[in-house]
Amino acid sequence: MRFVRLGAAGAERPFIRAGDGTLHELSGITPDVDGAFLAGDGPARAAAALAAGELPVADGTGWRTGPPIAAPGKIVCIGMNYRRHAEETGAAVPAEPVLFMKAPDVVSGPDDDVLIPRRSTSTDWEVELGVVIGRTARYLDDPGQALAHVAGYVLSNDVSEREFQIHRGGQWDKGKNCETFNPLGPVLVTADEIPDPQDLGLRTWVNGRKVQDSTTRDMVFTVAQIVHYLSQFMVLRPGDLINTGTPEGVALGHPEPKPYLREGDVVELEIDGLGRQRQRMRQA
Amino acid sequence: MRFVRLGAAGAERPFIRAGDGTLHELSGITPDVDGAFLAGDGPARAAAALAAGELPVADGTGWRTGPPIAAPGKIVCIGMNYRRHAEETGAAVPAEPVLFMKAPDVVSGPDDDVLIPRRSTSTDWEVELGVVIGRTARYLDDPGQALAHVAGYVLSNDVSEREFQIHRGGQWDKGKNCETFNPLGPVLVTADEIPDPQDLGLRTWVNGRKVQDSTTRDMVFTVAQIVHYLSQFMVLRPGDLINTGTPEGVALGHPEPKPYLREGDVVELEIDGLGRQRQRMRQA
Repeated sequence: MRFVRLGAAGAERPFIRAGDGTLHELSGITPDVDGAFLAGDGPARAAAALAAGELPVADGTGWRTGPPIAAPGKIVCIGMNYRRHAEETGAAVPAEPVLFMKAPDVVSGPDDDVLIPRRSTSTDWEVELGVVIGRTARYLDDPGQALAHVAGYVLSNDVSEREFQIHRGGQWDKGKNCETFNPLGPVLVTADEIPDPQDLGLRTWVNGRKVQDSTTRDMVFTVAQIVHYLSQFMVLRPGDLINTGTPEGVALGHPEPKPYLREGDVVELEIDGLGRQRQRMRQA
Repeated sequence: MRFVRLGAAGAERPFIRAGDGTLHELSGITPDVDGAFLAGDGPARAAAALAAGELPVADGTGWRTGPPIAAPGKIVCIGMNYRRHAEETGAAVPAEPVLFMKAPDVVSGPDDDVLIPRRSTSTDWEVELGVVIGRTARYLDDPGQALAHVAGYVLSNDVSEREFQIHRGGQWDKGKNCETFNPLGPVLVTADEIPDPQDLGLRTWVNGRKVQDSTTRDMVFTVAQIVHYLSQFMVLRPGDLINTGTPEGVALGHPEPKPYLREGDVVELEIDGLGRQRQRMRQA
């Protein structure tokens, strides 16, 4: 199943995008694609209703694409999780997952403008595989249990301000939580349609020039290892989002002068099977 | 005004605690004490209704005290914000605020059990002045504008697992987001009743022994400076919570063997005018 949310920011409505591209209203099944829907076996009910022809066809022409899930309960991010990204930033490949947080209110639609923060010098892109939790995960016994707790996957841009993140006295979160810093979507693809989350290509272009081009095979810790690991430190709940780290090719990894984002720049990102994003940079 | 929320976890109902201690139903005014209520001039409407005798008296005897606000949109925490706490941990007094995050779902009631995480060696207490945002704060021009964006104040325990926080490869958030790690309350006191947030005593006891005893006068950055500063890096929204840092006297600051918390230990905390908490430690 492929879920999308269309409409004005804060007033999106839920739809299914069927295999043939047809859009179907989901509002008769659920008010939103949120933790309650994902936890309550909503995707299976939606699939049954679609198969039974009970979901009205919709024409979404001209509608804005919002993030494909309602505001997550929390956003947990994994740092330095691709071998060649660790290398490009001069960091050691981590011995266990590095964890930081984004606040739920930084999520925006996949094609919404991204705001460059005032006094920013170093706004950067990060294409990432986003994992959406479907079942509560708490102290999982081993990574083999982990993927059963995943509702689906989503394309995520973990936008980062490197000066705020690294050079402003302390923790990375300071450069990760600016307004509009997590474009998400266009689609939530349920886990059954992604046979191997460790075999997805992911790419970024800035003003048409390809800057990131890797595969989730290069991840240091797999999705299953990450979900298992995080569940030892916190409770993962339905609707929570995990950003699983970015591959090499961010501006931070370039030689000087590093090509940080400027007003008017256009960033495009994609992951195999999870669609494509396009954001214009605008000054906050 | 003094707001409390009483009832089972997840099913709390909102009340006002009047100056004479009488409890009044607030459900006729708002379904909850949340961002929408705080932003929508809810406290003023509640005060008017109380003065007009429109709020029924309630008997809360035997009811559990929940956190006094609904789940915050985000929880932003300030580290190393008391001079003598920075000294006890061997850290320099920071040149600008150190920022990290807790997820909204770690909030619990002021007297609920705190769960010591599995495989924890170093669970620690942190009494803190919590600031609840009442008006959206985005790129404030100067700290003089900041307190007008504060709805009120609340007692907060920023529970921390030091081994997870410091020695597990990366950012502090790993030791800050365990289940039940932010007891909050018992009461949200509106800002008009706290004439000077920089003149509040705050104290912690463990098994009856006083371990923290300081005042918000020792803060490195004041509440006004923190709100102004954070608004340069993120949007603060009504209902968001800021934990403003802890004074000296945490277990981490003690000589070896450090007195980290064990199952059965009882932690009590208080801040002048903001009430008192009491938590029993229990193994997760």
